[in-house]
Amino acid sequence: MMTTQQKLWLEKAEALKPTLFRRTVKPRHWVRPERDAQGFQGWRLATLGPPEEFYARYHRRDLDATFDFGEYCVGQVRFEIEVAGTIDSPLRLQIKLGETPAEVGEDFNQYQGTLSRSWLQEEILNLERPGAVIRLPRRYAFRYLRFHAEYDAGYQFRIKNVVCDAVTSADLAAVSPLPASCPEPLRDLDRISLNTLKNCMQTVFEDGPKRDRRLWLGDFRLQALVNYHSFKNYGLAKRCLYLFAALADEHGRIPACLYERPQPHNGNSHIYDYTALFAPTLLEYAQASGDWDTAAELWPVAVRQLDIVQEDIDETGLFQDRGKWWLFIDWSSGLDRQAAEQGVVIFSLKKACELARALGREPECAVLERRIAHLSRAAMEQLFDAGRQVFVSGKERQVSWASQAWLALAGVLPPDAAAGTLRAVAATPAAVKPVGPYLYHYVVEAMFACGMAAEGRALLLDYWGAMAKLGADNFWEVFDPQDPSLSPYGSHLINSYCHAWSCTPSYFLRSGPAAHGFGARQS
Amino acid sequence: MMTTQQKLWLEKAEALKPTLFRRTVKPRHWVRPERDAQGFQGWRLATLGPPEEFYARYHRRDLDATFDFGEYCVGQVRFEIEVAGTIDSPLRLQIKLGETPAEVGEDFNQYQGTLSRSWLQEEILNLERPGAVIRLPRRYAFRYLRFHAEYDAGYQFRIKNVVCDAVTSADLAAVSPLPASCPEPLRDLDRISLNTLKNCMQTVFEDGPKRDRRLWLGDFRLQALVNYHSFKNYGLAKRCLYLFAALADEHGRIPACLYERPQPHNGNSHIYDYTALFAPTLLEYAQASGDWDTAAELWPVAVRQLDIVQEDIDETGLFQDRGKWWLFIDWSSGLDRQAAEQGVVIFSLKKACELARALGREPECAVLERRIAHLSRAAMEQLFDAGRQVFVSGKERQVSWASQAWLALAGVLPPDAAAGTLRAVAATPAAVKPVGPYLYHYVVEAMFACGMAAEGRALLLDYWGAMAKLGADNFWEVFDPQDPSLSPYGSHLINSYCHAWSCTPSYFLRSGPAAHGFGARQS
Repeated sequence: MMTTQQKLWLEKAEALKPTLFRRTVKPRHWVRPERDAQGFQGWRLATLGPPEEFYARYHRRDLDATFDFGEYCVGQVRFEIEVAGTIDSPLRLQIKLGETPAEVGEDFNQYQGTLSRSWLQEEILNLERPGAVIRLPRRYAFRYLRFHAEYDAGYQFRIKNVVCDAVTSADLAAVSPLPASCPEPLRDLDRISLNTLKNCMQTVFEDGPKRDRRLWLGDFRLQALVNYHSFKNYGLAKRCLYLFAALADEHGRIPACLYERPQPHNGNSHIYDYTALFAPTLLEYAQASGDWDTAAELWPVAVRQLDIVQEDIDETGLFQDRGKWWLFIDWSSGLDRQAAEQGVVIFSLKKACELARALGREPECAVLERRIAHLSRAAMEQLFDAGRQVFVSGKERQVSWASQAWLALAGVLPPDAAAGTLRAVAATPAAVKPVGPYLYHYVVEAMFACGMAAEGRALLLDYWGAMAKLGADNFWEVFDPQDPSLSPYGSHLINSYCHAWSCTPSYFLRSGPAAHGFGARQS
Repeated sequence: MMTTQQKLWLEKAEALKPTLFRRTVKPRHWVRPERDAQGFQGWRLATLGPPEEFYARYHRRDLDATFDFGEYCVGQVRFEIEVAGTIDSPLRLQIKLGETPAEVGEDFNQYQGTLSRSWLQEEILNLERPGAVIRLPRRYAFRYLRFHAEYDAGYQFRIKNVVCDAVTSADLAAVSPLPASCPEPLRDLDRISLNTLKNCMQTVFEDGPKRDRRLWLGDFRLQALVNYHSFKNYGLAKRCLYLFAALADEHGRIPACLYERPQPHNGNSHIYDYTALFAPTLLEYAQASGDWDTAAELWPVAVRQLDIVQEDIDETGLFQDRGKWWLFIDWSSGLDRQAAEQGVVIFSLKKACELARALGREPECAVLERRIAHLSRAAMEQLFDAGRQVFVSGKERQVSWASQAWLALAGVLPPDAAAGTLRAVAATPAAVKPVGPYLYHYVVEAMFACGMAAEGRALLLDYWGAMAKLGADNFWEVFDPQDPSLSPYGSHLINSYCHAWSCTPSYFLRSGPAAHGFGARQS
């Protein structure tokens, strides 16, 4: 049951639903996917000619043609069919749409991943009277499109004028150019990052436009940070904040994710770290937009989330996993998350304090500050290994990048000492490393926060730069430089190759820290 | 270019387009296809319960359910989906519809037949917001329907209220009961025959409601004969006659088949024997309906076809294949068709003569009679092997059932002598036998015409009865009792299991000849 307050917030959110920018994109090349051990995930695309050359031809049976749109599109697809001769059988038209060459190259019938194949972008049309304009029924996220036709040989047909009506709520005109001094490799990261964000910016900040297509709080925070320094769509961020607030459960706990359709509803999953991060997300929105009224209105929601996460802090001030929550931090299966969650909570409490002060709510700030001191002391006393000069986590006293990054961001140690923990973990091969861009973001953020600008830039170029070198149009949900086909779902076909949480290089490049090296600054 | 006359004929045909009878059919059983070496084509259906038991259940991932409608349906399909929980992924719903258990049991992705898989009845729906009523996009011909769903496990759903809105232009109320004396095995043949015709009777006499779905002249003649003695839809037969006349080419040659949609058009194939048979078809329509005005109007078309087939009769009066035509007679690949075509032409000329006399066109009748005498003499002099007392065909002097049947129907020999050729060929194991119901029909027709009523009835029970014993709902396009999976198209999945040209047992049972044995007669 929604409260009256929540219903009003939902109305506010719905009133902020953006009108999407639309643009017609035509394919750039007629291509053929070919196996190639040297190509990304074992595929390359041989160019056959301009699409117009294909459009001019009539085909008889077994038509199989692939198009490369030359850019990644999120949108509706339409094309025309023209028939010559007598239609003596239905036309079975399979249309596959892929973010990667592998998706159009491989047979979806062989798919064995753990997520449903219903996410793979394929339509089968059985046309009894092929002809005229065909509009595919869904929204797709793709760069490559493959047609495969089966029918009897009594007639010929051709496909022409394939287009995508691409949509986004990102206003490309709002983006400032990077300073001239910014070097090319970083410009590449910025271009790909903004592309990623643009494609995920629809009527909410989606996590991935191909798969999931949901609003997740953790992803949203990172997307919003980049958005404030690029497309500046404050209304969309405000809409998302109100959606989370409106969909909190009867305990006031916001969901980790939510769905927009058929009407906005709670995704029924709860992530401890995401819950804590609502307060920083609200603060950052107000700082970027200047809209402190919204921050004031949603302050009770932010502080309620921190009260809820406080329930799993023990009397010594330490986070204890009692099995109630999904602890995310990273996809890594072996990671002990205690220390990182401790860091997330302290970080969030500090951001909440900053917000309380800005809103003139000093008494509440004092309560939060006591918690910060208690949790920080517990972190130092129970998680810091003074001998090795790193934070450890859990009973096994595990050493991980996640623990150092989040406790650095929490400011438990002075910046120089925190930098020491980050350098120490980097020099410890047995330390648990990040497996995905979401945690890599926080490692980089921690580096910049600790004055390790050179290392931060190097990591950006090393990790995100490796995706760029592999030809990424957007940054990915999952990326292991050692194994570009790695998937947490048992198949590279189902990974999302445009995933919002990996779009943050632009944040570093445009907000200041990473830009120091080439002199760019932005307020 | 259509002539003004043809345009008027097309208008007449379109004005006769029937309104279809509609009936809602619900599935009778929830079943599971299982491999069974003893079952038809290697399959059996295990009954799981009433459909309502399935409808009551919610399912999570990998739903796979098959329904047996208990009867064969031609029509649209609809069903309802209800969802419980949060829809966290699209629902990929595969729906297969089969005339046979094998079609729902086997994997269409393994199909290797020579006709396009676009004829196999399958739809793939990708539903982003499953729920409400789903209406499948086409007309289907099936008894069995299988659902297979793939989606992520976040929600449950159920399928319920599956129905087919079955259509036909056959009026079941017009059919007279068989006489009480008709024995059960023949009643079975009648029931299955009328079912076959009913399912093929749509806005034209289709050859098969699953595959082809066209109006073929050879099939139409046989369907019309049964129709006149059962559903008595004279308007539909008249419509088909006008369609053929309207779609003749610039030489006045009617097509072997035609398509109704998007507008009626010529199928661009020409079968020598079908062309000749237009005249008998027109006569039979007038005799059954009493509508001699239509026969008079279309008489020039009938006589034009006979003039056209005459061009391939040589100066000795013998049909010569000059490669201009598709010679059908039967699907048999080894069959020499010369003698059978000779028989078809003589038979058709005689029927045309009968029509000319009925229309008071004796002068034209005299011309036709000269041709009949010339062709009959050539048949006796060049095709009759007096030593073996059979007709032979072609340079190799091939002996076949087809030759004896058609020359018996042509009345080249007196009935007793013709019966002798039919008995002789039956006693010749090396003779080329029929491979399909269309030619079997003419063998039976020849037997009855030659006073071999017992043999005709025995052949009906032997050939069509074998399909009935295999559980046929309708009679089939192709049937070899030695190999129930035989297909001329490389796969039993693509055969048509409701094919109009096999519906003629009812003609024999209801028009007299086969009924002699149990005393039924009909005017």
